[in-house]
Amino acid sequence: MVKKMIVDCDAGMDDASALFLAAKAHKVGVLELVAITTTHGNTTLNNVVRNVARTLTTANLNQIPIYRGAHTSLVEPVVMDDPYHGSDGFGDSNHDEEPDLRHLQQEHAVNALVRLVKENPNEITLVALGPLTNLALAMRLDDQFASNLKELYIMGGNVEGIGNITVSAEFNFHCDPEAAFIVLQNTRCPTYIASWELCLHRAKLDWDWRINTYGGVDSAQCRLMNKIEAQTIARKYFDTYIVCDQLAVAAAIDPGYVTQKSLHYATVELSGNYTRGQMVVDYGKKIVGKTPNVYLIDRVDIELFKKMMLWSLDAPSVDYTPPTE
Amino acid sequence: MVKKMIVDCDAGMDDASALFLAAKAHKVGVLELVAITTTHGNTTLNNVVRNVARTLTTANLNQIPIYRGAHTSLVEPVVMDDPYHGSDGFGDSNHDEEPDLRHLQQEHAVNALVRLVKENPNEITLVALGPLTNLALAMRLDDQFASNLKELYIMGGNVEGIGNITVSAEFNFHCDPEAAFIVLQNTRCPTYIASWELCLHRAKLDWDWRINTYGGVDSAQCRLMNKIEAQTIARKYFDTYIVCDQLAVAAAIDPGYVTQKSLHYATVELSGNYTRGQMVVDYGKKIVGKTPNVYLIDRVDIELFKKMMLWSLDAPSVDYTPPTE
Amino acid sequence: MVKKMIVDCDAGMDDASALFLAAKAHKVGVLELVAITTTHGNTTLNNVVRNVARTLTTANLNQIPIYRGAHTSLVEPVVMDDPYHGSDGFGDSNHDEEPDLRHLQQEHAVNALVRLVKENPNEITLVALGPLTNLALAMRLDDQFASNLKELYIMGGNVEGIGNITVSAEFNFHCDPEAAFIVLQNTRCPTYIASWELCLHRAKLDWDWRINTYGGVDSAQCRLMNKIEAQTIARKYFDTYIVCDQLAVAAAIDPGYVTQKSLHYATVELSGNYTRGQMVVDYGKKIVGKTPNVYLIDRVDIELFKKMMLWSLDAPSVDYTPPTE
Amino acid sequence: MVKKMIVDCDAGMDDASALFLAAKAHKVGVLELVAITTTHGNTTLNNVVRNVARTLTTANLNQIPIYRGAHTSLVEPVVMDDPYHGSDGFGDSNHDEEPDLRHLQQEHAVNALVRLVKENPNEITLVALGPLTNLALAMRLDDQFASNLKELYIMGGNVEGIGNITVSAEFNFHCDPEAAFIVLQNTRCPTYIASWELCLHRAKLDWDWRINTYGGVDSAQCRLMNKIEAQTIARKYFDTYIVCDQLAVAAAIDPGYVTQKSLHYATVELSGNYTRGQMVVDYGKKIVGKTPNVYLIDRVDIELFKKMMLWSLDAPSVDYTPPTE
Ligand SMILES: [Ca+2]
Ligand SMILES: [Ca+2]
Ligand SMILES: [Ca+2]
Ligand SMILES: [Ca+2]
Repeated sequence: MVKKMIVDCDAGMDDASALFLAAKAHKVGVLELVAITTTHGNTTLNNVVRNVARTLTTANLNQIPIYRGAHTSLVEPVVMDDPYHGSDGFGDSNHDEEPDLRHLQQEHAVNALVRLVKENPNEITLVALGPLTNLALAMRLDDQFASNLKELYIMGGNVEGIGNITVSAEFNFHCDPEAAFIVLQNTRCPTYIASWELCLHRAKLDWDWRINTYGGVDSAQCRLMNKIEAQTIARKYFDTYIVCDQLAVAAAIDPGYVTQKSLHYATVELSGNYTRGQMVVDYGKKIVGKTPNVYLIDRVDIELFKKMMLWSLDAPSVDYTPPTE
Repeated sequence: MVKKMIVDCDAGMDDASALFLAAKAHKVGVLELVAITTTHGNTTLNNVVRNVARTLTTANLNQIPIYRGAHTSLVEPVVMDDPYHGSDGFGDSNHDEEPDLRHLQQEHAVNALVRLVKENPNEITLVALGPLTNLALAMRLDDQFASNLKELYIMGGNVEGIGNITVSAEFNFHCDPEAAFIVLQNTRCPTYIASWELCLHRAKLDWDWRINTYGGVDSAQCRLMNKIEAQTIARKYFDTYIVCDQLAVAAAIDPGYVTQKSLHYATVELSGNYTRGQMVVDYGKKIVGKTPNVYLIDRVDIELFKKMMLWSLDAPSVDYTPPTE
Repeated sequence: MVKKMIVDCDAGMDDASALFLAAKAHKVGVLELVAITTTHGNTTLNNVVRNVARTLTTANLNQIPIYRGAHTSLVEPVVMDDPYHGSDGFGDSNHDEEPDLRHLQQEHAVNALVRLVKENPNEITLVALGPLTNLALAMRLDDQFASNLKELYIMGGNVEGIGNITVSAEFNFHCDPEAAFIVLQNTRCPTYIASWELCLHRAKLDWDWRINTYGGVDSAQCRLMNKIEAQTIARKYFDTYIVCDQLAVAAAIDPGYVTQKSLHYATVELSGNYTRGQMVVDYGKKIVGKTPNVYLIDRVDIELFKKMMLWSLDAPSVDYTPPTE
Repeated sequence: MVKKMIVDCDAGMDDASALFLAAKAHKVGVLELVAITTTHGNTTLNNVVRNVARTLTTANLNQIPIYRGAHTSLVEPVVMDDPYHGSDGFGDSNHDEEPDLRHLQQEHAVNALVRLVKENPNEITLVALGPLTNLALAMRLDDQFASNLKELYIMGGNVEGIGNITVSAEFNFHCDPEAAFIVLQNTRCPTYIASWELCLHRAKLDWDWRINTYGGVDSAQCRLMNKIEAQTIARKYFDTYIVCDQLAVAAAIDPGYVTQKSLHYATVELSGNYTRGQMVVDYGKKIVGKTPNVYLIDRVDIELFKKMMLWSLDAPSVDYTPPTE
């Protein structure tokens, strides 16, 4: 039986690229993409829904059900002013066609998560690529939700106190610190974290590869990525091409690509004049009475990752085959 | 058309007494008690459900649907060690019969709140007598929930920084400060607060009245109250008989009983070494850019309240008739 | 032996009026005014020093030594924008003569406090009318300072969570919450608090009395008060004339004027999104392991207070004689 | 003119070793050790004073004046339970002779710091090896103190959120977070930080070197270090021999030993459920309106450092000569 995956996302450009990875794995049959649930984050919920629909259609997978989720953070709405993803979450790109929303569902994403996990106990791999609001709400609506998950992959948090949106917080955790706290406190399945420092320091891709190799594939997916990342490529905010959400999905598809991980107790600072939203990792076992709850992804196989990225765009003659269970 | 009321509660002895008020109003036809939703608080959710069922049966109203709600606080579970309500929430009382749970519903209380308010826009009077977890979750699951409510009555919070569970926090707000914060931040209908200081200082009933007048009524409701409050009456934690949840329901039934109220902006302190959970009332308009969001109930008509309390027990020849809309 | 008093202040109009009370008591011989120490607060330290010198000269007491103290708060400087006291702390008043600074000392106020208290163990009554920075520094420089004080009177803090500068904090405690915390945590002598709510609700003086009775005295002191409070009188920020620092000095001079006081454990909230700087009073003994540390002044004899105020201005035929020890 | 140095410390075993570095530099005439000021920290103030005196005597430098400083933290005393340094701060070691306290001064360390820096404007190199309480108090007592310093070296803080005493805080900053905050906010001279991560990850010395090379020197200083670190050596808490305070003194003596440093704005988290006391480094310039205030010491020359350490023990034929200005 293939792995059943739900992706919760706030697409977002890297979410789109990550969805192409999941979509490809679905199409080649190594996993079943059960649903996409959406959340506020890189842009408004409405934009996220549209961006997800556009991405799935581009991947020829518009039959995957999409669910509308949380419109705002659990406790304190954050002023969303994300310069990176543009006002539409897709790099302020223009598209000739409206996205196909026929498979957008009436059921709320949180209720769908609760229902799908209850219907498939210990079978769902959940991959969270945005603020963790939907997951937190699902955990609070159903106290069995966490223990019925098979595994959880999260892009979010930081492991050395390096923030990318505030001085101390990573964007997804910053957007909803209480949700991140709830998820880390209550997770009961193997949980993997692709942190901001993993993205920033240990998964660098050079711009030439992005532009000429990844960006040179002749496929609809590549054309979408090139269109929505046109500003990113033009502005080069960082010295290298930074990937984020893709790292979490790649880990969920191919465990072999994670070459080093470490098990720790981690939580989230909710107070603090500077550190609200920071992930706190108990490297030195200083917090009494806590057992490790997350695997930090410390190192990844970049060469393998690059193959997976090309494979996700239907690039020809890529030497990559994902593992089956 | 009569007022439609939903009571969200964590019964709790004063919740039971308050439910008798609501039940009586339902029976005489001045309001329709649409549902009782339950929450953790004075005792575990399971106990609350049982206590509500027992209370409704005692009031001959066991057909009212009961919904199971939040099992714990939104963000940080509090260690529940409520000495006042006993381990069962009903004063460690013993009962010959099991409660009748036939009308306990499958639907989660939060989904029921969302659905009922959507089905009855601007018609539901919501009375919250426990931690505000269910209300907060409903507001987050449906961004129209708050604006579709007709009015909201809350027992909770404090207005002079006097805590009854911690140095600075009232029990219901302490149990789930984030939920209280969310509800106060997002309420869009007239919202009335019966604070702890109202209970403690401005709605005192003497013990003689409780024991001999209220406690001397010959009815099933009175017998239940006497049984579950036996320890309270024996121990007399306070100089007078303190009522809490009853004050909020009474205000929802009979506006005339509120003799003084004041409109302020109020919120909840979520941080703080001492003040987490304290309601913060902006008496001096020091918080910029906020408009008043709650009516604090400052004074009530105690004599009228005593009549309502006796009327709720089916005491004979009570000179009280609730107003109709 | 007469009581030895040091006044620490941030003059400030009410500080000036309070200094007239202390000066008068000194002149009639019921206490010895040993020193005035100055602190930032209502205005800059430089202005405070000038205002104190002007006040003492007006009272014919310019021989009292004045010490320069803390120029800013202990931890976080507050942006000082006090609309009430004017940019000079004296109601933006103009004066023909420069203040007489001949008795301004070289020694730092904190070192002077430490020295004077060490030289006069258990003999100094310290009256604090501004932010408590100097007192906190003295406690940290000399661990015997607190236990060598005879008694401590503080104008500051709030007892019902009513702020006058932020939503939850009184001005003096707000200016230096950490100093207030240190002082309350470390005080070892009888300590009396004149809180903001005492000023606001329980020591009201009507404007007519201020303007025509107090303001109608023919003396240099009255002329100074009328000059510096001219804006206050013109603007009438409050319905009544609010006195603050005077209440603390009056209590230090005449215990009989305090008609009700209560003993509690009190501390200061240092964290908090809204409540930083709020005094937290443990009315319900909810904080474990703490013993009462302050007397809250709950009620005062207003008629006696009015006599003292007139007496302080050298008004003729005032029927007031301060007690001797 | 040689560099004038004051060392503020909480000796502590690594403080002793660091003092040997400073003492040696004094003796060879490349700097003038003006004073040692003491603070609570690794042990009580009384123990620190004794340990400093013993260390200076061992180095044949007992004429250097020692000043007693802060007995406790600025705001909140921490429960000192330092398992590493032993109850006496010197590894629970026994000594045949009492320390020589003849040069212990009457003046408080804070007043001495203020005076010495005022007397030697822009000439004092201050090296802080314990909680920063004395420095913070000096900055608050004299608003020119910070700008009159020549340079400041601090052992303390963390740069990747790795705590050694709590989950997020380094010991010295944890002991007095407010003091660390004040010092970082107010420093006006070049300021160098030897962080915990520098000690833990980038200045490792193997146990063999400690025991046989450093520990094998035939000198009084070596004998003292071996005695007080006997438990440390026996227990080997870490895989390598961790040095801390020595790194800061070495940087103050020989700039060439710092092979990489970086300039950032850094501050200290004072609030936070987990992160109180954590140094917050603004790597990504996310805090608006702040300019860099500290040099983080990122890399050091370990081989050079080892030579300096041996030199400090008067080991024969060490190929090391400290630079002169
Ligand atoms: Ca994302
Ligand atoms: Ca209740
Ligand atoms: Ca004042
Ligand atoms: Ca040290």
